[in-house]
Amino acid sequence: MSSKGVMIIRDPEVAKLLADETRRRLLQLLRFAEMTPQQLAKALGKNVSSIMHHLSLLEQGGLVTVARTEIRRNLVVKWYRATAHRFVVSYELAEGLVPGSEQYATLIEENAKDAAVVLTKIGAKLSEDKLAEVAELIRRLYLLTMEVVEKTLLKCYSEGGVCPNDMLVKTLVTINLYKREDYRKTVEKLIQFLGDLIE
Amino acid sequence: MSSKGVMIIRDPEVAKLLADETRRRLLQLLRFAEMTPQQLAKALGKNVSSIMHHLSLLEQGGLVTVARTEIRRNLVVKWYRATAHRFVVSYELAEGLVPGSEQYATLIEENAKDAAVVLTKIGAKLSEDKLAEVAELIRRLYLLTMEVVEKTLLKCYSEGGVCPNDMLVKTLVTINLYKREDYRKTVEKLIQFLGDLIE
Repeated sequence: MSSKGVMIIRDPEVAKLLADETRRRLLQLLRFAEMTPQQLAKALGKNVSSIMHHLSLLEQGGLVTVARTEIRRNLVVKWYRATAHRFVVSYELAEGLVPGSEQYATLIEENAKDAAVVLTKIGAKLSEDKLAEVAELIRRLYLLTMEVVEKTLLKCYSEGGVCPNDMLVKTLVTINLYKREDYRKTVEKLIQFLGDLIE
Repeated sequence: MSSKGVMIIRDPEVAKLLADETRRRLLQLLRFAEMTPQQLAKALGKNVSSIMHHLSLLEQGGLVTVARTEIRRNLVVKWYRATAHRFVVSYELAEGLVPGSEQYATLIEENAKDAAVVLTKIGAKLSEDKLAEVAELIRRLYLLTMEVVEKTLLKCYSEGGVCPNDMLVKTLVTINLYKREDYRKTVEKLIQFLGDLIE
């Protein structure tokens, strides 16, 4: 009934679908249940035609599918579900390496800058230069983690579901990150900058 | 419309509610939408009375609440939603430190053992002794991470939503873990045991 597996999103156009709040919520609901456009509209407090429009975009992007249809008083009722249990945007898009992914990469950059600004608000003393450096470290740390999560998930799910165990996936991600010198260096630099601000 | 914030579950009786698959799915749906028992029953393919039973347990545990009621043909229709956007079971329960949490702690232990066994299946060469040691390291790593995630989330959400930025929360968790010697030692020991098995 519920959908299984992980989908790595490598197409920038599909990644853009996730920028919309309603579509993100539709996807969240359809990961756990099969629902009709009518049910989804009620659940999200939107009108049916708007929901059908979003579902059609998600279906074209391969993120949802019609699980079954039903004839009810001469009308075809479609039950939708998500095509995967978890959707992960590829780190390659977050790095802006793929044509068309520049917008997504910029969003990640902005988030990292916002994160650095929040740090100054809670007491980190950072000059303008240092602030930019911290933002870049946060961005790098995020991308490194995305890369390792993606590779670990692919390995876990490609080998016939070798990792049904969530604890194992987490352990492997931790180990694979820790083994990378660039990861350790990035974390250590951040700790230097932020010192005892956080504990 | 959607619920906000993080709830740390410290009551073992409430944590037990999450052991049931249907209740977990109800909670997942109600994080993103307000829904009636009728809608939930249709979405999960269960009968309404079973859903109402589960909702009543979740409501007693403080995990869902009636967001609004509506009178429809003389019947009261209740719309439910989750009380938080994210539910985290406290690491104290996972460690079995709280009376009544022994069962939950045993579950974590079993998961760690399963994870170690999966590792041998994908090529890790571990004697019986080593297997138990790896399982214990995996368990410790998991608990340490749970502890740091919980403390970081509490700090982030208690200070008037200082961390609306998901990237910042992740960065702080990474840094706070890395600063702990017991964390680094645990990861390094696991790497020693597992060597080049994973990359």
